[in-house]
This record gives sequence, structure tokens and C-alpha cells, in this order.
Amino acid sequence: MKKDTTMRLRNVEGHIRGIERMVEEGAYCIDVIRQIQAAQAALSKISSTILDDHLNSCVITAIRGDDPAERERVIKEIHEVFDKTNRPG
Amino acid sequence: MKKDTTMRLRNVEGHIRGIERMVEEGAYCIDVIRQIQAAQAALSKISSTILDDHLNSCVITAIRGDDPAERERVIKEIHEVFDKTNRPG
Amino acid sequence: MKKDTTMRLRNVEGHIRGIERMVEEGAYCIDVIRQIQAAQAALSKISSTILDDHLNSCVITAIRGDDPAERERVIKEIHEVFDKTNRPG
Amino acid sequence: MKKDTTMRLRNVEGHIRGIERMVEEGAYCIDVIRQIQAAQAALSKISSTILDDHLNSCVITAIRGDDPAERERVIKEIHEVFDKTNRPG
Repeated sequence: MKKDTTMRLRNVEGHIRGIERMVEEGAYCIDVIRQIQAAQAALSKISSTILDDHLNSCVITAIRGDDPAERERVIKEIHEVFDKTNRPG
Repeated sequence: MKKDTTMRLRNVEGHIRGIERMVEEGAYCIDVIRQIQAAQAALSKISSTILDDHLNSCVITAIRGDDPAERERVIKEIHEVFDKTNRPG
Repeated sequence: MKKDTTMRLRNVEGHIRGIERMVEEGAYCIDVIRQIQAAQAALSKISSTILDDHLNSCVITAIRGDDPAERERVIKEIHEVFDKTNRPG
Repeated sequence: MKKDTTMRLRNVEGHIRGIERMVEEGAYCIDVIRQIQAAQAALSKISSTILDDHLNSCVITAIRGDDPAERERVIKEIHEVFDKTNRPG
């Protein structure tokens, strides 16, 4: 999983390097924006996978554990991460 | 909490009724779009509050409970709800 | 177009009224959140249609017109509306 | 403007390289997600700037020009770019 995530991040890194080149070569604005949106979509998929993994490991362990503060912390973190993506309008 | 949510939903309902009137009276497009975005933002806040409540009650109960299928279900639901807001690009 | 927009807004209004009822009857949190997300999606489609119409009428008229201030205004508005949806992260 | 965009993209590229390192070193999932969200926010700002520039140059030129097909094309592109960010729900 770690290896897969690193590889996918490396792909996004390469993608962004490609966008830099597009900009330098004077590519059409809208094409640049489309590539940026594609890179953002790839990042969304990566964070979705990481969250899935997190929910199925750390979160379950913390909530089943004996430390109420720890429990509260993981719950709060999930809520925060959700709020960041949940468009404020 | 239930009462508060209902009241806030009722406010959004009234807001949307107001937008209908704006459209009927020929309001300027951009003003209509801004009001729609404001209604969406209000809805985002409502679902954020509901999720917070859900995480602190049902999710904790299910994960601390003895049914692994139930555990899996609540985890999967959170992931799905997150993915819906996590921009697909 | 105006009639169609009003009708679609009225549908969203009805949808939200349905969500209020769900909350009052103690529906499962995740089901409520899903319905809220569906209402938000319907609103996104409505503002997309309004924007399309706006681009093809007011924006073209203003930009082809003789008033530079007017031109600047419509451009600025589109940029603002885009920024609202373009998630800040 | 071109130089500034390239520089900001290079910063995001460096940011993502940093996230790869975090993952390799076993950083906490939520911290990784937060950094990914920050990188996405930086990308949103970059595409916002590019769009602003595009609206104030190509779009005005095309719409004031004599080619209706060209006019239609730029309008359609803006609408598409908006729809990508305008959450589908």
C-alpha cells in the first residue's frame, strides 16, 4: 500500500512537471487548466485510498481501544478532513 | 440536535423558494448563481453537523460492538460520503 | 428556460422538504447526508445551466459592447463564480 | 505571469515530493491527507490565476472577433472548466 501510494504520488509529480513544461512552451490556457484539474483528481483518488486504509486500521484500533482522548482525536480528525473537501460554498 | 437540523433545513427551503422568486422576476443570472452557491454552502454545514453527530454516536457504538459486518458497514459509509465531496476532478 | 429553472428549483425545494421529514422521523444519519448531497448536486446542475445561458447572452453582449467597465464587470463575475466552486482545499 | 505560474507549479511539485517522503517514512495518514489537500488548494489557486488571465485576453479577443465558431468555442470551454469544479454531488 505504501509503495503504491508513493508510486502514484510520483506520477502526479511527473504530471505537474509536464504542466510546467506546457506553461513554458506557451500552451493554451484552457489546456493547462484541464491538466491541473486532472492532477487534482489524481490527488483526490490518492487521499481517498489513504483515508480508506486509515479508517480500516488506526481508526478501528483507536475506537476499540481504552483511551477516550485517543478515540475523540481520531473522530475529530476524520471530521476535519471531511470538512476540507465538503465545499463551504 | 434533530430540532436544530430541521430548522436549518427549513431555512434552506425558504432560501430556495426565494431563489425561485428571483428567477421568476428575471433577476440577474450571476445573482441567482450566488444565491444557489450560498444555499449549497448552508447544506454543506448541515451535513457536516450530522456527520459529526454520527461519528460520535453510531460509529463509535458500531466499532466498539461485536459485529464485524456492522463495523465494516459504518466504515464503508464514511468512506463513501467522503468520496462524494472529495472532488473527482 | 426561466420556466425550466423555476421548476427544477421547485423540485429541489420539495426534495429538501422530504429531507426535513426524514430527520423528524429519525432517519439514519448517512441516508440524510446522501440526500443532502443529492440536493446539492441538483443545485450544481441548475447553476451550470444558468451560467451557460449567461455566457451565451449577457457575457457576449457585454464583451462585444462599447463599455470597458461593463466588460470588466462580467469578466470579474465569472471569475468569482468559478473561484467559489474551485475548492480552496 | 508565465514565469510566476511556472514557479508556483514548481513549488507544488516540491510539495508533492515532500509528501512522497512522508509516506516512505511512515507518516501518520491524516497528516499525509492534509498535505495532499494543501497541494490541491495550491493547484486551485494556480488555475484560478490562469483562468483570470485567459478571460482577460483570449476570451475578450475571441468574443470581440469576427468568427462565431471561435466565440462559441471559448464560451464552451469556460463552461466545461466550471463544470469540472462545480461539484457533481
